Amino acid sequence: MRNLKLTIQYDGTRYKGWQRLGNTENTLQGKIEQVLSRMTGETIEIIGSGRTDMGVHAQGQVANFKTSCTKSVDEIQQYLYQYLPEDIVVSQIEEVDERFHARYHAVAKEYVYKIWNAPYHNPFLRKYVVHIPQPLNLEAMQRAVPYLLGEHDYSAFVSSRSKKKSNVRELYSIDITKQDSLIELTFRGNGFLHNMVRIITGTLLEVGHGRMKPAYLKEILERRDRTLAGPTAPAKGLHLVKVYY
Amino acid sequence: MRNLKLTIQYDGTRYKGWQRLGNTENTLQGKIEQVLSRMTGETIEIIGSGRTDMGVHAQGQVANFKTSCTKSVDEIQQYLYQYLPEDIVVSQIEEVDERFHARYHAVAKEYVYKIWNAPYHNPFLRKYVVHIPQPLNLEAMQRAVPYLLGEHDYSAFVSSRSKKKSNVRELYSIDITKQDSLIELTFRGNGFLHNMVRIITGTLLEVGHGRMKPAYLKEILERRDRTLAGPTAPAKGLHLVKVYY
Repeated sequence: MRNLKLTIQYDGTRYKGWQRLGNTENTLQGKIEQVLSRMTGETIEIIGSGRTDMGVHAQGQVANFKTSCTKSVDEIQQYLYQYLPEDIVVSQIEEVDERFHARYHAVAKEYVYKIWNAPYHNPFLRKYVVHIPQPLNLEAMQRAVPYLLGEHDYSAFVSSRSKKKSNVRELYSIDITKQDSLIELTFRGNGFLHNMVRIITGTLLEVGHGRMKPAYLKEILERRDRTLAGPTAPAKGLHLVKVYY
Repeated sequence: MRNLKLTIQYDGTRYKGWQRLGNTENTLQGKIEQVLSRMTGETIEIIGSGRTDMGVHAQGQVANFKTSCTKSVDEIQQYLYQYLPEDIVVSQIEEVDERFHARYHAVAKEYVYKIWNAPYHNPFLRKYVVHIPQPLNLEAMQRAVPYLLGEHDYSAFVSSRSKKKSNVRELYSIDITKQDSLIELTFRGNGFLHNMVRIITGTLLEVGHGRMKPAYLKEILERRDRTLAGPTAPAKGLHLVKVYY
């Protein structure tokens, strides 16, 4: 059996998220499996590096699948390009060791959360950024970042629906940049809990709006209490940019 | 009567172009007039700086209209922002002299034509760029530019449907830039004929593909023969960026 690693870009607007749900095909995993199954004549199951929620986008999601198909990597990529919808592009395929597992072997991930910070929204970016018309204090947001970095129990910043055994993760960096009206928060860490990027973003935005002091994030983190943190920022601003192995 | 100048951004994907056509409302002019007429109780007619074709986008279309409405400029902008669809944003409104005319008084325009030059298309930009997978010789395209600049009769680069009396225009500059996979051709001139930017782009792309020599563009221009020029590049790559007064 061959083991193939896919790097995938998608505009998540139309999808119910990454994970296949029963027989509905309107998921990213389902769409890709459907095309691969048709191509190979096998029942293909792909393993993603992790789920992305409904409406979340990806520039570099990674998945792998096993197959007996003898087509070349280029032929498979062409087939996928031809039969996948326009909003999903498999940008790379590599032959990998049979033991490679897209979820278990991921050692780090990079997410970007995008905000359009101007009085009016941008009609071209409206599906890929969250629009915040009020001015934001970026300097205060930047002062809050160090309290969140390092290895911690991030229970304060996880969806209450999460059922992970451990909420300990290591967050390496959060870079906040602004170019014209576009603010980007880039998160790098060894793993992210469900909604973690969106809840940390929502909390940093409370700081940006002046409703929370930067140092208060240390207390939220230590008290591990989701109710102290900010709201979950909307899905459409979130992009999975890169998975490291 | 007041005379108001609007600066308008739109994602042209869903529209039949700028110009109102009979009773169908699926044009940009029609949509904006409908909201302004409802707001004022008058039958508002807006004058655009020029038409944009079906599928063409704008970051800086300009229009003006006359009204007896007594709302403040800010109130009008808020009303438009609330009632226009998400893909149309009036980014600025100014009170102007009653003689100001968005079409007659335009002295120059800037258009950008966007090309995604990579083996696979970009799912996030797919509606705003044209995808060209083949490598392009940008240096050759740049060498062709000087033959096109200056004051000329651009009959070779105008849609056969055009009924203008004179095809003489002055083209000030065409800048070609590439950042990562995104190529932008920026056109500045005192006026543009119907499809002129798209036909010049289609012709420069013939040069980029190596199917036409740069110096041949001089001959095309001089012979004023549309059949010698390249194809009309697709609408979705074209953006009206700025109108100068």
